[in-house]
Formats: sequence, structure tokens, C-alpha cells
Amino acid sequence: MSSQLSVQALQWTGSSLNVLDQRALPAHIRYDEYRDAAGVADAIVSMRVRGAPAIGIAAAYGVVLSAKYHYPDPTWQDKVARDIDLLAASRPTAVNLFWALAQMRDVLAAAPADPLAALAAKAEAIHADDIAANYAMGERGADLIGGACSVLTHCNAGALATGGYGTALGVIRSLHRRGQINKVYADETRPWLQGARLTVWELAQDGIPATLIADSAAAWLMKSGKIDWIVVGADRITANGDVANKIGTYSLAVLAKRHGVKLMVAAPSSTLDLSLATGDAIEIEERNPNELLADCYLGGDSLVGAWNPVFDVTPAELITAIVTERGVVVDPGLHGVRSLAP
Amino acid sequence: MSSQLSVQALQWTGSSLNVLDQRALPAHIRYDEYRDAAGVADAIVSMRVRGAPAIGIAAAYGVVLSAKYHYPDPTWQDKVARDIDLLAASRPTAVNLFWALAQMRDVLAAAPADPLAALAAKAEAIHADDIAANYAMGERGADLIGGACSVLTHCNAGALATGGYGTALGVIRSLHRRGQINKVYADETRPWLQGARLTVWELAQDGIPATLIADSAAAWLMKSGKIDWIVVGADRITANGDVANKIGTYSLAVLAKRHGVKLMVAAPSSTLDLSLATGDAIEIEERNPNELLADCYLGGDSLVGAWNPVFDVTPAELITAIVTERGVVVDPGLHGVRSLAP
Repeated sequence: MSSQLSVQALQWTGSSLNVLDQRALPAHIRYDEYRDAAGVADAIVSMRVRGAPAIGIAAAYGVVLSAKYHYPDPTWQDKVARDIDLLAASRPTAVNLFWALAQMRDVLAAAPADPLAALAAKAEAIHADDIAANYAMGERGADLIGGACSVLTHCNAGALATGGYGTALGVIRSLHRRGQINKVYADETRPWLQGARLTVWELAQDGIPATLIADSAAAWLMKSGKIDWIVVGADRITANGDVANKIGTYSLAVLAKRHGVKLMVAAPSSTLDLSLATGDAIEIEERNPNELLADCYLGGDSLVGAWNPVFDVTPAELITAIVTERGVVVDPGLHGVRSLAP
Repeated sequence: MSSQLSVQALQWTGSSLNVLDQRALPAHIRYDEYRDAAGVADAIVSMRVRGAPAIGIAAAYGVVLSAKYHYPDPTWQDKVARDIDLLAASRPTAVNLFWALAQMRDVLAAAPADPLAALAAKAEAIHADDIAANYAMGERGADLIGGACSVLTHCNAGALATGGYGTALGVIRSLHRRGQINKVYADETRPWLQGARLTVWELAQDGIPATLIADSAAAWLMKSGKIDWIVVGADRITANGDVANKIGTYSLAVLAKRHGVKLMVAAPSSTLDLSLATGDAIEIEERNPNELLADCYLGGDSLVGAWNPVFDVTPAELITAIVTERGVVVDPGLHGVRSLAP
């Protein structure tokens, strides 16, 4: 999978998957090479690769690596099926992971004459389609905004979170190319600081200036009249238009409503989960309390704990528009998102 | 100034001020000794001591140290006046600093026969009164809540931020002594992590369990029904009941209103600034962008900046009650706080 993009989270060589270790950014740019599904699953669990579309793509390549490893062992299909289960268990909230694995299962079920070539072609298509979807979303989102604006984004919904170009950052890139960005603000996004470590770095690679704020300063930013739009990605979108995304997105949505700031969710259609009626049914991942406690050196104090949900659900009625590569729904709280289905 | 309190931000020896370096907590418990006003001003600027009441007390002792240093030099009064100006310039938002310095100026203006003794007595009284006020606030706040509850607090409004016992944490301590605390949550409070480094540590010293959350998880905490009250301190309260406090407080107030969570502001009456009609007139300190950028190793990238306001203003109508040692105003948005004036 080649690309003209300046930042690539995933590089497929045909025989291995090179994963940019995002835990080390921006201090170190280092790719780790994976040759089996267990390694790819670990890269997802450990957040070397993160972002809903990117983990879907990585998992698809993980299935290719599994088949390469086990085929033509007589029980290769059972072994690949177990690897698919392992990949599916890596993270619970983003639906793109399950969507990509379902695509790969469909290829296997069709019993192609050359399973390795068919699986690799499918994974590469998932990867290429994601990049194309991001470009389309970027244009659709910029069209919807339609003029000069200042925006806030949360977490990293950029090239690093996708096949390339990005969802929310794709919209920002398209606005920037049109000369319509006054200012980009980025929440630092605790506890992993995806905004501080990834988003402002990624934007700087493309020459786009960005201003970092503490997560808790977003309300004051809005009160001060400094932004017109919030643009974020998504990990899962249910039929009624509810959106699971990085913890803090729901907070931004409530604050945006109070301040007359508009909220755009940009995500590929692989993020839609029309099997769920509302966001109440989405499993919200809670990660290790030490992701918070390690920074205060108190991990060993039995009186000190932490609650570390890493996603939240924003109700559709707080969202101005949901943008996918297939189309845009304005006021998803009124319309839901079934019209965006394939 | 002695005390039975387990945690003391400030220790006055009669000839020096020992300041607990809160930047090093909780890993290191280290007191720095100051013998002149310039040193105390630097301790405030550098946030070795922070918290509105504590910086007022520290500044008062700074004036004592200044007089001890310069008296009876013939121009001692001019030199002390300059030191008072230096102390006043240390931080702009918390009014307790200016209130305490005004108290010390009044003592000087009265031209006491023994200025050193008079100044020391006044500073010790400011310190002792603050502790007494905190105990009174703790009881009044607990009375107002009136039963078992789960609470969230922001930043550190504890013994470390005051003469001792704390404002918001004073209320939590009083509730805990009554057996009425189900659970205490603490925002970690970026960028200085006062919640993560100070609040949960301080509570643990008193045997009170606390659960840390990322600042951006507060909305999801409320949505999940996990808290009944938010209790915070204040840096300045204007006549109409608007409250300046640590960045993020305004965000919590908006979120609390949406979720039916109550918001208590606990602060000594020295925090009242009745010379200002509303919070619009409060100067909001913006600190060095590197307080945010240092964590992403990008301080030198000209495309990456940061906006670092460290306070915000919460409008009175979002506040359920303001609690001082003199009394309580419920619904300050309807009543203002002039009834709490001396």
C-alpha cells in the first residue's frame, strides 16, 4: 500500500505489517514489523496503533498474516478463525474492527482458489477504500462548513488514526487547502495525550499551525467566542445517530450546544453500526487505572483509585452533522443515519 | 503557627516561612525556607505554593519578612511598600492575595509602636482565621448537603490550598466524619495535575479514599449517575455571585446543570470581591504555553502553540450554593453574595 501522504500509521509490505509506534510520538518515529496475527493484536491492545479505522485496517492485515502463517496446514482455516477471534478481542468499542474482520471472514467463506491472494487483495482494498473515503469526507465536510472558520478537534482523528488523510483532520486539511481555516485548536486529550502528541504533530507535518489547549479549557474557549465548529471522528455510530468517540466528546457536545458552536462527526461508513438502535447498547471500554495513576506516582496507594472510561456516547440530538464518504446527515437527531447505509 | 492538621502548605517559624514545594508532591515532601519577600513572591509565581487562600497567607508572611529585613533602616517603609507591590504582582486572579496585602498595609498605615510584632500578629491571625473559616465552611457545607452523597471535586481546594483543612475538601472532610460520603471523585486537573498529585494524596493522608478521573470524563461520570454534588473552591467571587476558579470549573458547571448535579462553591469571605459587579471584570491569568507543550516535546516547533488560561468564570446562575464561614447563599444567581459581606 503506497501513498503520497506525509504520515502513515500502517505500511503493508506484502509479507509484513509495519506499524508506527504511536506511543513514542512525537519524540521518536519508529515502525515495528509484525509477521503474525498475535503481534498485530498486541499492537492494537497496547495502542501502538489506535483510531477506529486504523485498527480495522491493521486487523485485516492481521488476518492476511495469519493465513500466510498457517496455510496450507490441514487445519489452517481453524487456526485463522482463532486468530480472527484474537484480533476481535483486542478492543471493544470501535466497530470498524469487527466490520473489517467480517469482510475478511466473508472472503474466507467464499473459499477462493488462492486464499492468500484473495485475503491480501481484500485487506489492501479496505486500506485503499479508507483513504479514498477520507478524501471524500474531507471535501464533504469542508463543503458543509462552507467558509472561513476556527475549529476545535479532540483526540486524533487524523492520518494516524486511519489509512491516511484522516476523518476530522481530513476535513481540516481540506479546509486548509481552501484557505478557510482561521485557527485550529486541539484538545490535549488525556490520559494518552493523543491531541498533544499526535494531532498537533501530524498537522505540523503538513504545515498547518495548531494551538493546544487543556481538555478542561474547551468550555472557556467556546465562551470566549474563539471557535465556530468542533470536528471529531467516531468509533461507532448507531442507527439513531448516537456516536461513540474518545472520552470527552460528549462533554464537548453539551458545551457546544450551550455556546452555539456546531459539532461535526466525520467517519467512514464502516463506523456505522445499524444493528444497534441507540448508543445505550455500545460497550464502553474501561482501561487500566494506572494510565491515570502513573502520572501521580500513587499506583500503590490502596486509598487512591481511578476510573478510566476511554470512550463516551454523544446523543444524536447534540450533533449538527454526521459526514461520511457516502453522504452527509444534517440533524441526525431528527433523521438517524440509516440513509447512509450501503 | 502550629496545627493538628496532617498536611500543612505553610509553616511559620517566627523568623522564616517554610513552604511545602507542591510541585514535587506526592513523590517528595520537601519544605523550602524563605527569609525575604522576594523569595515568597517567587514561591507563588513558581507554584511551589498555590491555592487562593494559601497564597494570601504566604503573601502576608512575606510582608512580615520584608519588614524584618528592612526595619529600622530609615527608608524601611518605602522598601516594604515595594515588596508589597512585588508580592501583589505574583499572580492576578485570586483576590485573597490582594485582600491579605491590604490587611497588612492597614497595619503599616496605623504606624504601630512595634511594627514587627504588629505585622507578625496580623499575618498569624490571617492564617489562624483561615483555618477556622475552613472548619466552619466544612460544617456549613455538610449541613447543606444533609445526607449521604457522592461528590466530584476539581483541582485542589484542600489543606494544601489554604491555611489548613481546606474549602471544598473541608466540606468533604466534614461529610466523611459524618459517615455521609459514598464516594469522592477527583478531576486530575491539567496541566498541573493538582487533582492527581495533590487532592487524592491529601485525602489519602486522612484515610479518605478517592477515585481519580480524567478531566474530560466528568460529563460521562454525571451521565452515568455516579455523583450528586460537585464541590469546588474559588479564587474570586464577584458581587453578583460569579465565581473565578481553576480552568474547567465553568465546564463542570454547564455539565452539572444538564445532568441535575448540584454545584457548591466553598470559599472564605476573603475570596469575595464586592468591588466587581460581575465576573466579566476579573483578570484571567494565562500561563506559559510550555506548561502544556512540555509534555509533547514540541516546545520548539513554530507551528505548534498553546493557549493556557488557568482560570475561568462560572456565572452565578449555574451555582447551587456558595458557602463561606459567614453563611451560605443558595441560588446566588437570584440573590448575589452581598449578604455575605462583613
